[in-house]
Amino acid sequence: MRIAAYIHQGQPAVGLVSPDLQSIRPFALDAAQCALGALPLIEALSRGEALPATGAAVPLAQVKLTAPIPRPRRNIFCVGKNYHAHAKEFAGSGFDSSAKAGGDVPAVPIYFTKVPESVIGQGEAIRIVPEVSTAIDYEAELAVIIGTGGKGITKADAMKHVWGYTIVNDVTARDWQSRHLQWVLGKSFDTFCPMGPWLVSADECDGTKTQVRCFVNGEERQNASTTDLIFDIPTLIETLSAGITLYPGDVIATGTPVGVGIGFKPPKYLKAGDVVRVEIDGIGALENPVL
Amino acid sequence: MRIAAYIHQGQPAVGLVSPDLQSIRPFALDAAQCALGALPLIEALSRGEALPATGAAVPLAQVKLTAPIPRPRRNIFCVGKNYHAHAKEFAGSGFDSSAKAGGDVPAVPIYFTKVPESVIGQGEAIRIVPEVSTAIDYEAELAVIIGTGGKGITKADAMKHVWGYTIVNDVTARDWQSRHLQWVLGKSFDTFCPMGPWLVSADECDGTKTQVRCFVNGEERQNASTTDLIFDIPTLIETLSAGITLYPGDVIATGTPVGVGIGFKPPKYLKAGDVVRVEIDGIGALENPVL
Repeated sequence: MRIAAYIHQGQPAVGLVSPDLQSIRPFALDAAQCALGALPLIEALSRGEALPATGAAVPLAQVKLTAPIPRPRRNIFCVGKNYHAHAKEFAGSGFDSSAKAGGDVPAVPIYFTKVPESVIGQGEAIRIVPEVSTAIDYEAELAVIIGTGGKGITKADAMKHVWGYTIVNDVTARDWQSRHLQWVLGKSFDTFCPMGPWLVSADECDGTKTQVRCFVNGEERQNASTTDLIFDIPTLIETLSAGITLYPGDVIATGTPVGVGIGFKPPKYLKAGDVVRVEIDGIGALENPVL
Repeated sequence: MRIAAYIHQGQPAVGLVSPDLQSIRPFALDAAQCALGALPLIEALSRGEALPATGAAVPLAQVKLTAPIPRPRRNIFCVGKNYHAHAKEFAGSGFDSSAKAGGDVPAVPIYFTKVPESVIGQGEAIRIVPEVSTAIDYEAELAVIIGTGGKGITKADAMKHVWGYTIVNDVTARDWQSRHLQWVLGKSFDTFCPMGPWLVSADECDGTKTQVRCFVNGEERQNASTTDLIFDIPTLIETLSAGITLYPGDVIATGTPVGVGIGFKPPKYLKAGDVVRVEIDGIGALENPVL
């Protein structure tokens, strides 16, 4: 199933997208639940509850999609340097302040976070504040949505904890990422986490082998399969949950393929007027203008 | 004023601690608000609202304190290597994977985060899971509580955005911190963020010049003034808010002084049976056993 959050006739709603992607049926949720998008539904499902009833279908063209989890309950977990070719381009870019210690290919997953309030939805603008940074880069990523939580989850059990997937664009201020050594600041500027267009359950999308693409103004910049991940999804979940309890609705962005802006010489940073489109097979496309 | 969250007769409550620290008067809050501790009050104050009425005083000895903000709305912001002598001991410990890039003294504030669910309160146990890590260290820290939120806050205006302070023990798995290069994993294990004993408003505690001490089993390990911070509180707020909007109740742990466990040769890690006590003048003491 595909669960989307959206605005219809001025009201926030959460609904089930039809298999042909032409319409959406709203779940019976109160306003407070709708403000959290798909999160209360993922939590309900993890408790073994049924989804709420749905109302009359509305044409998808008549609604404005918002981020499927517009305000996660804690920072989004993200993985750095998790595709071989990207790890090499990042180390060679001069922006990786951990390259000397970590080398090109990390020995273990490198986790960092983005604040929940950096999340924006389909079509919302990535906003550059030139006085703060103009070294703004895109990163197309498959994001895992945790269903059942847990701690000390083994690789063998990990996929049972995956409810499904969505797309995240891990927008980054490269100068801040490099200068501040730890990455949360350069990764968490307001509007730096486009997410969407919806959540797709794991039975309808195999995140372990799907294609991730990114286009800037129609020009293909990234195109790789998640089979190329250095640390696969089970390994990422085992590592993360070793010391930290995971909860339903946790978001794990799994890393970006080669082809980011700083991989080019000179770097191809995002600028006002650009449009970034991330496509992942089995999920859909997430497109955001840059202002 | 001092605002504490606590359990009294089995019920969560939030109250105003008396100036003589002998009693506490509960605010009129519903159960959902009490579960968030002092957070709804900080939010109400930031909107210019008055605090709710308080009920009859209860002896402080009859309540069990919990963390003043038991579940922050997003990860806790933390600053690394923010005292000169500690930056030097950390660089010399061999555990600082960013030392080669950053040198002993960072040129800019180094921010990382701890997940909200790592927070525990006064007297709750810091739990070591030996299969995951035995390189567990303490870090006594003054934490700033943001009152009025904002973005692009200048140093000159920063202190107007500080509601007050609390104590945080930034417990860390040193091997994870070092091996994973980015620090969120090694900083976020369950129970790794003791916080308390309460919040103290800025009119009753000057966080810019107060003394921070840490004792392990009664032995003094850390003792420094916040006047020794490399990056002072206004600078920390200016840096953090440049690209990221701050919200009421945000927690910023400002860094730890010299004297952490890895500063000793061999390192003095925490072990089951230890008791860690952090004292900050003007706030009080936060004590947690290690299990």
